Amino acid sequence: MAKGITTRAENYSQWYNELVIKADLAENSAVRGCMVIKPYGYAIWEKMQAVLDKKFKDTGHENAYFPLFIPKSFFSKEAAHVEGFAKEVAVVTHYRLKNDEVNGGVMVDPDAKLEEELIIRPTSETIIWNTYKNWIQSYRDLPIKINQWANVVRWEMRTRLFLRTAEFLWQEGHTAHATRQEAVEETEKMLDVYADFVENWMALPVIKGVKSESEKFAGAIDTYAIEALMQDGKALQAGTSHFLGQNFAKAFEVQFANKEGKLDYVWATSWGVSTRLMGALVMAHSDDKGLVLPPKLAPIQVVIVPIYKTEEQLSEISRTAIKIKSELESKGISVKFDDRDFQSPGWKFAEYELKGIPVRLALGPRDMEKGSVEIARRDTLEKSFRSQEGLADYISDLLDEIQTSIYQKALAFREEKTTHVSNWEEFKEVLESKGGFISAYWDGSPETEEKIKQETKATIRCIPLDNEKNSGTCMYSGKPAKYKVIYAKSY
Amino acid sequence: MAKGITTRAENYSQWYNELVIKADLAENSAVRGCMVIKPYGYAIWEKMQAVLDKKFKDTGHENAYFPLFIPKSFFSKEAAHVEGFAKEVAVVTHYRLKNDEVNGGVMVDPDAKLEEELIIRPTSETIIWNTYKNWIQSYRDLPIKINQWANVVRWEMRTRLFLRTAEFLWQEGHTAHATRQEAVEETEKMLDVYADFVENWMALPVIKGVKSESEKFAGAIDTYAIEALMQDGKALQAGTSHFLGQNFAKAFEVQFANKEGKLDYVWATSWGVSTRLMGALVMAHSDDKGLVLPPKLAPIQVVIVPIYKTEEQLSEISRTAIKIKSELESKGISVKFDDRDFQSPGWKFAEYELKGIPVRLALGPRDMEKGSVEIARRDTLEKSFRSQEGLADYISDLLDEIQTSIYQKALAFREEKTTHVSNWEEFKEVLESKGGFISAYWDGSPETEEKIKQETKATIRCIPLDNEKNSGTCMYSGKPAKYKVIYAKSY
Repeated sequence: MAKGITTRAENYSQWYNELVIKADLAENSAVRGCMVIKPYGYAIWEKMQAVLDKKFKDTGHENAYFPLFIPKSFFSKEAAHVEGFAKEVAVVTHYRLKNDEVNGGVMVDPDAKLEEELIIRPTSETIIWNTYKNWIQSYRDLPIKINQWANVVRWEMRTRLFLRTAEFLWQEGHTAHATRQEAVEETEKMLDVYADFVENWMALPVIKGVKSESEKFAGAIDTYAIEALMQDGKALQAGTSHFLGQNFAKAFEVQFANKEGKLDYVWATSWGVSTRLMGALVMAHSDDKGLVLPPKLAPIQVVIVPIYKTEEQLSEISRTAIKIKSELESKGISVKFDDRDFQSPGWKFAEYELKGIPVRLALGPRDMEKGSVEIARRDTLEKSFRSQEGLADYISDLLDEIQTSIYQKALAFREEKTTHVSNWEEFKEVLESKGGFISAYWDGSPETEEKIKQETKATIRCIPLDNEKNSGTCMYSGKPAKYKVIYAKSY
Repeated sequence: MAKGITTRAENYSQWYNELVIKADLAENSAVRGCMVIKPYGYAIWEKMQAVLDKKFKDTGHENAYFPLFIPKSFFSKEAAHVEGFAKEVAVVTHYRLKNDEVNGGVMVDPDAKLEEELIIRPTSETIIWNTYKNWIQSYRDLPIKINQWANVVRWEMRTRLFLRTAEFLWQEGHTAHATRQEAVEETEKMLDVYADFVENWMALPVIKGVKSESEKFAGAIDTYAIEALMQDGKALQAGTSHFLGQNFAKAFEVQFANKEGKLDYVWATSWGVSTRLMGALVMAHSDDKGLVLPPKLAPIQVVIVPIYKTEEQLSEISRTAIKIKSELESKGISVKFDDRDFQSPGWKFAEYELKGIPVRLALGPRDMEKGSVEIARRDTLEKSFRSQEGLADYISDLLDEIQTSIYQKALAFREEKTTHVSNWEEFKEVLESKGGFISAYWDGSPETEEKIKQETKATIRCIPLDNEKNSGTCMYSGKPAKYKVIYAKSY
């Protein structure tokens, strides 16, 4: 246990809360439900952003920026959307403060009331489609493929750092197309982009699928999602991509003249991932000693800790450490040499285990004599000694191996925690004793889905895209199955 | 004139407004005072961000993220700050909407009133210093050098795209130091970072200086600023760096134990630049045909336009264009080949002049025969022919030359528009007839400053850092001068 963090076995939820704070990723702010993302946490988020942003641009998207505020009336325009998003929102009603002559301090100026209240965006479909209306006249204006990096606010009652906060950071892609097929392809392509990112950068395997009616985005025809499994056997939705059909085009009157000169409504998609991914990253790989970061997203990939008694030893070790650092950096590896003299090596070891630095190198007087270095892997906690000769190549390969190994471990865990069940008793038994993903047949009815949710809190995470054609019977109702789906309790 | 843009001579202000919209940089949104930054404008902003972000990191800063909301009471804690910032702000009073049973649509739920109203940050000193309080105990926790990229809201009554909008994007650095000297050095260093950016990337010369008492940031001891001159002879404040002394540390009770174990208040700085820089970029260099972008910030540096009659000609030209494009790209130059068949070359020429692409290459059948290419510079509108041989090196050099040339032109303009005056009559005469920067002696009194402002609308832009020791008399009051300052009308 690092610095008194609760173990996962004791209390997984508390372990997570403490780890996020002790590893300096984020903390609660003075504003209820809003977090401060600290430099170390933000550095990881920036790495995520850079990778995703490049993927978006490589797939033909451009960034833009739309207003933080949405006029209240916009939320009434798309019937399903208003139900899903117009409720728990932050509402701006006034635009001025004045000195409070009675109580001191400042007060809201009652004379500065807005004619129409403004909503802090919980998501931007409405303001964006209201804008696209003016950008689109003909098929030549299509497709529009825009992404924005932004903050959004949803007034959640129960919040947890990264997983569910009132304000969070995200990207939201909003695209407009001339045909249904093109929009569906876009929706699926962006799901693939997300899956590729989560699997190959976050080292976390995902199931790609479609949401059931009850779980889909308010205003979508189809919501595609990627679902990942956390170490406590609960699922986490890591990203969503929505095929919106012509719903928003109709709500905001966005028509275009097609090649034949006929007017048609525009087809839409939207897709997003958020700082919630930070929560997934922590929960998927970390252990009782602290974070375990995949090398591809670690702000510091290698830390070098000197072990010395005398100033002379330190200065000799420093020369070697700085040489190693620059050799590693020339291979694009980010390295920190921690020569602070007011912390012991033991304290530093624990600190960098807590922070999840993938590789730790220790250099002591014996290493100086022998030309060796001690290498510790954060993921397996294995230690070994190696020659300083050819170290950069070795570390470069080791980082790749760690990335793969973390993924493989998460994949093996998911496979072990995925169970096919064929009847209701088995379902309840597996859910309680083992948790994880439960694969089962479903009759496709919202009633069945709702009853299962009420009785067990498990929900249909998705209908996997690689769904085999149904051949069984619903594990709950016994009726002919429509789909084989994935159930789980979830975040 | 491009596509019916008002000329600068006709109406400079209208020229600017039209240009920002027609060049697809930004537009007004459905929300009063808030803009939509369109992909082309955002691409320029992203380039600015990338350069600045690297400079911040190279000078030892880290990024983080603090909440959008600030509790109302925080604004009462720093006396000067409350006067300057707690007035025209967006106030969140409620956190829920509900269906409006009477009128349809949605309405603010009166039951969901916040106990304490939340202010959308107009700047984040208060919430950040309230956070730093928990981060700082000892001198070992210092310095803290954090930057955040964020949106902020100031409820401006009169707004103009980029120059003054209710919501804008910016970065705000907030640093905490153990000594006054270190904080002052930080303030000055960041001013230098801004000046370097504006001069060497935006190609815009600036004067570095300190603000007078009346113009400084609410809560600062000293506000340093860089001032640039626009083509209409008005000044634009392009960036500010504030030495905050111990004001915020005292307001939020942030003390640290120094090396001797004694408690002291922490010293602070803050510094920021915003999307206002986009306005400066447009106003400084552009002409009646459209934008003129410095190559270092142009999202597309070179455009290739094919000129052809037959499909055969196009396919031959395309082969050459694609070869040229890839040669240029291998030198890190961003290139667009516009082979759209539904727009004429003439239309494209006007379009890319409007968009400010630094270099345009045209390739026609004659060029194919002769192995030549027509090169047009956007800044000077000069055209020339060259061999396709060795083109990439030539263009690479040409882009550097354009960058320098744009800067030199702006510098010559500023020099021509900077006048030293020694008496009040001369001041008024120069201000009305010529405008620009007026250098003059000032007695240092707020009364003089205020009278000059009331009579002429000109303000003291700054007391230049390279201020020569006073040896004259105030051009207004005739009293002994304290400083030689720069006056101008400003944005």
